Order: sequence, then C-alpha cells, then structure tokens
Amino acid sequence: MANTAQVLYDFTAEPGNNELTVREGETVTITNQGVGGGWIEAQNSRGEVGLVPEDYIELPGGGGNVGHVAAPVAAHAPDLSFFDAFAAPANNTTQNQASNGKDPWSVWNQDTTGGSSNNWAAQPEGTITGKSAAPDPWGSTAQSHPQAYQGPGAEEDEWDDEWDDVKSNSESGDGGAIQRGGATGSSMKISLNNRFPGFSKSGPELFLLCKQPPKGKEKITIYMGEVGPVWSYPEAQLDCVVADPKKGTKMYGLKSYIEYHVIPNTTNRPVNHRYKHFDWLYERLLDKFGSAIPIPSLPDKQVTGRFEEEFIKMRMERLQGWMTRMCRHPVVSNSDVFQLFLTYKDEKDWKTGKRKAEKDEDVGVMIFSSIEPEAPDLDPIEVEQKCDQFSRFTKAMDDGVKDLLTVGQEHWKRCTGPLPKEYQRIGKAFQNLSSVFTSSGYQGEATLTDAMTSAGKTYEEIAQMVAEQPRKDLHFLMENNNEYKGLLGCFPDTIGVHKAAIEKVKEGDRLVAASKITPQDKVTMAKRVSTMSYALQAEMNHFHSNRIYDYNRVMQLYLEEQVKFYETIAEKLKQAHSQFTTM
Amino acid sequence: MANTAQVLYDFTAEPGNNELTVREGETVTITNQGVGGGWIEAQNSRGEVGLVPEDYIELPGGGGNVGHVAAPVAAHAPDLSFFDAFAAPANNTTQNQASNGKDPWSVWNQDTTGGSSNNWAAQPEGTITGKSAAPDPWGSTAQSHPQAYQGPGAEEDEWDDEWDDVKSNSESGDGGAIQRGGATGSSMKISLNNRFPGFSKSGPELFLLCKQPPKGKEKITIYMGEVGPVWSYPEAQLDCVVADPKKGTKMYGLKSYIEYHVIPNTTNRPVNHRYKHFDWLYERLLDKFGSAIPIPSLPDKQVTGRFEEEFIKMRMERLQGWMTRMCRHPVVSNSDVFQLFLTYKDEKDWKTGKRKAEKDEDVGVMIFSSIEPEAPDLDPIEVEQKCDQFSRFTKAMDDGVKDLLTVGQEHWKRCTGPLPKEYQRIGKAFQNLSSVFTSSGYQGEATLTDAMTSAGKTYEEIAQMVAEQPRKDLHFLMENNNEYKGLLGCFPDTIGVHKAAIEKVKEGDRLVAASKITPQDKVTMAKRVSTMSYALQAEMNHFHSNRIYDYNRVMQLYLEEQVKFYETIAEKLKQAHSQFTTM
Repeated sequence: MANTAQVLYDFTAEPGNNELTVREGETVTITNQGVGGGWIEAQNSRGEVGLVPEDYIELPGGGGNVGHVAAPVAAHAPDLSFFDAFAAPANNTTQNQASNGKDPWSVWNQDTTGGSSNNWAAQPEGTITGKSAAPDPWGSTAQSHPQAYQGPGAEEDEWDDEWDDVKSNSESGDGGAIQRGGATGSSMKISLNNRFPGFSKSGPELFLLCKQPPKGKEKITIYMGEVGPVWSYPEAQLDCVVADPKKGTKMYGLKSYIEYHVIPNTTNRPVNHRYKHFDWLYERLLDKFGSAIPIPSLPDKQVTGRFEEEFIKMRMERLQGWMTRMCRHPVVSNSDVFQLFLTYKDEKDWKTGKRKAEKDEDVGVMIFSSIEPEAPDLDPIEVEQKCDQFSRFTKAMDDGVKDLLTVGQEHWKRCTGPLPKEYQRIGKAFQNLSSVFTSSGYQGEATLTDAMTSAGKTYEEIAQMVAEQPRKDLHFLMENNNEYKGLLGCFPDTIGVHKAAIEKVKEGDRLVAASKITPQDKVTMAKRVSTMSYALQAEMNHFHSNRIYDYNRVMQLYLEEQVKFYETIAEKLKQAHSQFTTM
Repeated sequence: MANTAQVLYDFTAEPGNNELTVREGETVTITNQGVGGGWIEAQNSRGEVGLVPEDYIELPGGGGNVGHVAAPVAAHAPDLSFFDAFAAPANNTTQNQASNGKDPWSVWNQDTTGGSSNNWAAQPEGTITGKSAAPDPWGSTAQSHPQAYQGPGAEEDEWDDEWDDVKSNSESGDGGAIQRGGATGSSMKISLNNRFPGFSKSGPELFLLCKQPPKGKEKITIYMGEVGPVWSYPEAQLDCVVADPKKGTKMYGLKSYIEYHVIPNTTNRPVNHRYKHFDWLYERLLDKFGSAIPIPSLPDKQVTGRFEEEFIKMRMERLQGWMTRMCRHPVVSNSDVFQLFLTYKDEKDWKTGKRKAEKDEDVGVMIFSSIEPEAPDLDPIEVEQKCDQFSRFTKAMDDGVKDLLTVGQEHWKRCTGPLPKEYQRIGKAFQNLSSVFTSSGYQGEATLTDAMTSAGKTYEEIAQMVAEQPRKDLHFLMENNNEYKGLLGCFPDTIGVHKAAIEKVKEGDRLVAASKITPQDKVTMAKRVSTMSYALQAEMNHFHSNRIYDYNRVMQLYLEEQVKFYETIAEKLKQAHSQFTTM
C-alpha cells in the first residue's frame, strides 16, 4: 500500500506531454515521487505510466505534500484557494483549446462570437451613453479582460513552467515567490479580482483625494500639440525584434519550453525571455498603467501540439506585434519595468529589477499623480463630454473591427476550403477532357490537347494560389484587427475609471455638505479629474495617430498583395490562352 | 344549365397566358365556346375567366366537341390516344419546367444528373464494348433521345400553336395534317416509337439487302483525305443568322408566338420561321440522316414566364448555334429540305417543299444507299474495330463533357451566389469602419477614411463583376459543352445502326446455309457495311475537325475573358491601393 495512492480529482493528460489521464477515485501506483515541479510519476491499473500533478493525488501519509487541498473545480469548493484559480482552467479551458489547437485562427472566431462575455456587454449601457452612472465600473473586473487574459493554466507548457519556477524561486529566495507563490507551491497568478490592488479597495478617490503627490517621482508630461493634448514623445522611436525561438527542456527532458531573443534597437543586444516573462511584464504594465493606458493582452495562450512549428511562429509574430505596440507608446516604453525587460544585463540585474517592479506602489489610479499637463484645468463638463465621446468612438470601432473579423474569418474559410477545391475540379475537368481527346486517333490533335492540359494545370495552380493567398494578405489584415480588438477591449476599463472619477467630482457639493471632504478637497478633485482627462485625451490622440498609421499600412499591404495575386492569375491565364489556336 | 360544364381533368394555367386553372369535377360557366384552336373560354365559381382546353371539359350535349375523351394521364387510360400523348406532358413536364422557369441554366443540371435515362445507360453495355451483340439496339428508341426531345407539349405556347396549325392545315388541305393531325384535332407529333419509319420495322437489313439502289437519286460522295475518309465539303461554307425575334399573335390576340428571321449567307434574304418550323426541320433531318449523322436536338422547349425576354434571347442563341452546326455539315446543309428551310421563296414554295420533304422515302438506313465512297471496300473486321473505337471515344467524351458541365454548374452557382455576397460584405465592412473613423473627431482623418471608403466600394464593384462574369465567359464554355453533350447523345443511336449491320454481316454464312439469303446477298452485305463504315468514318472526322475548332475557339474566348476579368480587378485594386499613405 505504500506505493499506491487515491486520485482526488479528474485530470486530463496533455497528449505528447508524458502525462497520465486519471479520474477521481481511481487508485494509482506511485512510480516516482521525486520528479519535482509539482508532478509525480504514476502508473494506472492498465499499466500506463505518466505524470500527474501531485495535488491531484492523495499521497500516502508521511509524504512531503499536502494530502488534501481544495477541490479543483470552483463549484465543489466555496473556499476558493489559489489552487482553484489554477485548476479550473486546467480542466476546462485547456481542453477546449486543445480541440481547437489545429487551427491557430480559431481565436478570431471564438472572440468575435463570444459577445456576451466581452467588456462592452459587461459594462452597463448607461456607462457608455453617459446617461446614467455606473456606481462601480470595476465591480466586474474579474470578467472584464476576457481577451486580455484567458486565465492561468491555459497552456500546460506554461503553467508547468510556473510550478517549476515557483519551486526554484522559493529555493533561491526570489521575491516573486512572495507575491505569486503559495504555501503548497501550486499557486498560479494572483487572483484576477486583485489586479488593481491600489484601486479596487477604494476607487478613483484614492488619487482624487490623496493628500500630497509622492515626492521625487518620475513625471509624465502632457503637451498641447496640434491635435490637442499629447504625450511627450521621445526623439528616437524605441523598437525591438522578437526572434530565434529556441526550445529548452527541464525536469530531465520531460518538460519543454520556448525561449525567445528580444533585441532592442537601443542596445542591439539580445536578452532572453520566455512567454511567462512577457506575461509578467504584461501584469506589471497593467497594474501600473491600466487606469490611464489600455494595455493590450498578450497573444492567447494555446496548447502546443502537432502544429508546434506553426504555433511557435504565430506566437512569436504576435509577441512581436505586442512588443512593437508597447515600444511605440511613449509612456510605457519609457518606464523602468519596460526598460528592465529589454535591457537587463544579467540574471542578477533581472532579479533585482523584477523585485523592485513588483514592489512598485505607484500602480492603479496613482499613475495619474505622475502626470503633469502643461495646460489650464478643464471644466468638469468638458471632461465628461470628452469621456463620453471616446466611449462612443471606441465602442463603435470595436463593433466595426469585430464585423470585419467575422467577414474575414468567413472569407478565409472560403479561400482555403471550397474555392480552391472548385478551381482544382475545373482544372481536372479540362485535363480529363484533354486526355479523352488524346485518344481520338485523329491527327492534328496535339495542339489542342497540349493547350487543354496546360489550361487545366493553370487552374490547378490557381487553386493553390487561392488557398495560399490568405496567409499573404488577409492574415495581416486579420492580425491588425485582432490587435485592435484587444486594445479596444481595454477601453471600457480605462474609460470606466474616468467615469467613476467624474461621478465623484459631481458628488463634490454633497460630500462637502456632509463634511466628508473639505471645500479644498473639492477643488483638488476637479483639478485632478482635469489631469485625468488630459491623460485620456493624450492617450486617445496616441491611439488615433497609431490607428491611422496602422490601418493605412495594413490596407496598403493587403491591397498590394491582392493586386499581385490577381495580376499573377491574369498572367498565368494569358499564357494558357496563347496555346489555343483557331488557325 | 346550358352554359355550365363539368371539368373532366385537372388543368394548370400558364401564368400570363389568359388561361384558367381548373380541377377535375369543378363546374365552370362557358363564356365563349367559339375561341377556336381547341380552347374555350370559361368562368369558375370565383368569377375568374380564362381559357381551358376544350377536351378537358364535358361540354353540354349538342356541342361540336367530343364530350368524353380518354383521360389525359396515361395511367388512367390504357388505350393511349394522341390526346394522351399530349396531355400527360402538359400536366407533368410543363409544370416541372415551370418551376425551373426562372433559371434557364437548370437544364444543364437536370441533364447531367439524370444519368439513368441517358442514351449511354439505356444501351446494353455489350453494344458499347463490342463483346456481346445487342440484338436490337433500337428496342429502346422511345427512351433514346431524352435530350433530343423533351416530349410534346413541353411548351404551352408551342403546343397551342400546333393546335391552331393542325386546324388551319386541315382547312387548307396541307399534307402535314395527314401525318401529324388527328381525328380530334388535338394530336401532336408522331409517336416517338415511329421516328425511323423505314427502319424500326426491319433493321439495317433494309439497306444491306435492298435489291437495287433507287435510280436517279442524289449521290453523297466520300473522298479519302489526309485524315482518312471525309465528306465532300463545299467550296463556300454555308452559314446563316437567326435574328429579330418578333412576337406574333393569333386567336384574337389571346395567344402569342415568336417568329425569327433566318438569313442565309447565300441569298442574304431573310425567311421567317417559328420554333415549330425548326422542330419540323429537325424531325425531317433526323428521319433522313439520323442513321448516318448525329442530328443534335433543338434547344429545349421551355415555358415562357416572367423572364420571357431572357428566354427568347437564350432560345435564339441556341437556335443560332444549332443552325450554324447544321450549316457547317456538308451533307445536311446540301440537302433539299435544309435548303428549302433557308431559301423558300414564298408561302406556296414552302408548303410544296414541305409536302415533298414529308413524302421523302429515302429516310432511315436508306440514306446509305446514296453514299458512294471513292475507296476500296473495307474488311468487316476493320469496320467493327473502327466502330468500337468511335463508340469508346464518344462515350468517354460524353463523360468528360458531363463532368465539365457539372463542375461549371457548381462554379456558376458559387460565382453568382455566395462569392459576390462575401465580397460585398468585405466592402461593407471597410466602409463601415471608415464611417466609424470619420466620427473620431481627430484631425487628419480624411485621407484614411476616403481611402477606406474607396477600397470598400472597390470590393462592392468586384462583387458585381464576380456575379456578372459567368455570363461573359463560363456561359459560352457551358453552351459549347451543352451542344456537344447533345451531339454525343446521338451517337449511341448512330453507332447502334452500324453495330446491328455488322452483326447481320457476321450472320451471313448462317443465313446462306439456311437459304435465307443468297451467297451474292452475303457479298453485297459486306460491301454495303463497308459503305456504312466509310460514312461513319467521314462523320467522325467531321466531328473531330469541328470539335478541335470549337474547343479551341471556346477556350480562347473563356480564357480571354478570364484574363480581362482578373486584370480589371487588379487595376481597380491598384487604384484603391494608391489612396492609402503611411507618410
């Protein structure tokens, strides 16, 4: 009995990952308890051996692990532990994504159809139209970044990394373990409910009423430009290249991960990062800037599988897109944490910087305390009008982008499915007729049959061109709009912060009357909401200028490739045409 | 009661044709018994007035019409009258076609899918492979021209004409009435079983064993050309134009018909012909040449309807194609009946010629008695080999053509259905996004939004081009293949005559031994089957040379239009592209 153990919860193995599927109540034999990283090796009654998360198994007494933990499915355990937050997606999301794993594009479809769970729907209608105020737009924070973050554990590969890291971090005393680790070593990211720790407790009044701006902090200046308030842009545009994905292994080769080179144009020196490092950066940027600046989500986590090569390429391309967008943002790219990510010198430098970033208290709405607009204060009515305008615009653009994604997705399917099949059938029919003609025994047949065969082959080539074309043009149009969908999905949260602040300012007189705040506080609040508005306007102007550039660029690229495509077809058909003769 | 009558059989009115739908057992009021042409005007209980075939109604005693006739549906009346032959299609075929009336192309689909009723399937496999002899390949004659002839009464408009004509013919003593008319004045074409009157009674031996060639008859010479036996081609190619369809009316304007101008290049003088005249010509050519030369069917009869203009245009185009093919045939175009059709001087000339043609006894297999090959007799084994080769080729080409028609039909549907809708949606999505951008309030937006709108409109234009393109290219490819399908559908019959003759020759020794024929008869049979083979070879060579020309021509046209299509799209997209800028 010493070697057998009871399975506590269902666990579905990730194919090709040396894992073992087990069911609650099943008895397994422990074959290796020392695998590490939160895993043990077990054998089931059918003799199959594989890895199972150690917390899924009730180990024999005296083992080093906690025998009982909360059930992995939230519904079973009202006392949500960190483990729950991790385990539920592992059982659900992962499997859903695995079934879609063959099609890296399915995310377009999923996201665009999941209307009920998107940010716009979650937010009360009144918040957007401005007719009624949402008392707490952040109340739905847990659901408010569906695209931004698909929940931890969506990628087995990655959450396995985390387990491992948490353990090694604990051992090495990495500060990250304090915030991110847990007693059992099985925790994942911090709870989504706590994403804005400085804010969710107290709302925008934390900034509106803070007694004095922190001393000696970095200042973010807003200038009045031709288009209105603008961020201060650096002279040289920061940029970086994400390249050279390399596979690394650990746990005696049982587990693998991908490491990328990130090469900033400032140092031209590559630094190594894994997906989880990008994810860490995303979390830091979201914490720090999310109230003022939409921080788009990272590319979706996805299960690796048979299409690993393609998946890695796609993820790298999307990480590149995300990094490029972050580099382009004057406030984000200038931040310490972003600079650390791009230019850390060595392991020690990275760890020190990481600890510092995680301890940063200038997060949530406090970011506004760093902002200094070089312009006169705005009237609160104007602040509200601007905010409503941005809300309407971003909502409308979100709809437009999703519409284009839906249409594009259908077009993609047609171009890679029925359409090339049809051209192929046309090509085959020509060739088939040609080969019948060849059997006529009539002399002088060859010119026609050669021409027919050639025309048939041309249509087969066209079939292939049609099927391959979307990757050359529609792909980029889709990626661009997908990126914008992600960005736009952040606006309800960002705008919500502003709306909440505006409501607080509107309550000013009442709060003074009730002696909750002083008349001076009321004046300060109006001034500070003006600062917030300048920030929002600067951000919108940044968004617009980027949008105009991005859409011009992607439409150029799309149309250029479309022109080439049609010209090539015309040229091929012209050649096929020249072989026929009625002389 | 004198004015009321009982309806004997269901009759469905042709919309827009002043007809009245009536049901068996219904009582109607006769409002005009003197309409003529086999029709009466009646009013139903709902007050609706319209024409009903008089034989469908049990007229009051003392009326001039037969009160009871056989039921119009064959199943109801084992004693098939001429009337039955007419009425059944009127109730079935007509309605089926009416439901397809909106789509003049549906005939492609119907014919290509109706595999079980086509000529190739109806003929025993052995006949085609030559491994076993079909004792009477004509046994299935009644079914063997499904494309050639869709049955009488398929077009209300036309059978109405017939009724009228039969009556007027009887009055004028036209000989046609003898052959085509009936006691009740309601008969249509002669029975399909009797299509080859000189042949169906006795088989090819009628020619093989005829005692002496008729004297003083026209001779059809076969020469040895470069490609083998060839017909004697005229120096100047006969051709004609079918044009100027004009609507004529009769029966006090209640019924209408279409009359075409047919203008031969020899006289350049137009003669008038209605569809039924073409049909008469077709019947004469089939009777006279069908054993030696595939006479393709006329364009399908079809119910006129809302799309009358388009239908008339399509029918004229197909009549033109049919006439062109007949003109191109050196034997057909040189025949008296064909020349009569093209160049009759006046009504009297036409009627005299018509009577003469209808009395022509040189029909069926007797056509071979006119043929004189200027070459040594062929060995019967070679005759059989040639025949088998042609049989295999025409069967294979029939399959290839039908395959292409099926593919083309699907492509047509896609190009006129889902594909343009998708391009339109892409266009709308671009324009939609453009109009969202216009609402941004950001300055310097106009260049992008103008370009996006323009790109959107370009895709809408492309949508329209895609939808219209098939009529410009695929149409002709389909028409050509449809024509060839019709031609190829005649070959089983033509080849069947040859196979039957070959079998008779093979029986020679046995027939001599049984004293059924003389040894001299046997020699004559071998000589005559050689003549038949020369005719078949000349016809195949004619077919091949036309086929090579036709397919070269139609492929040239198709590819030329396809090139233009893709070039135009590329040009439009190039212009759309030029409006975007990332400067």
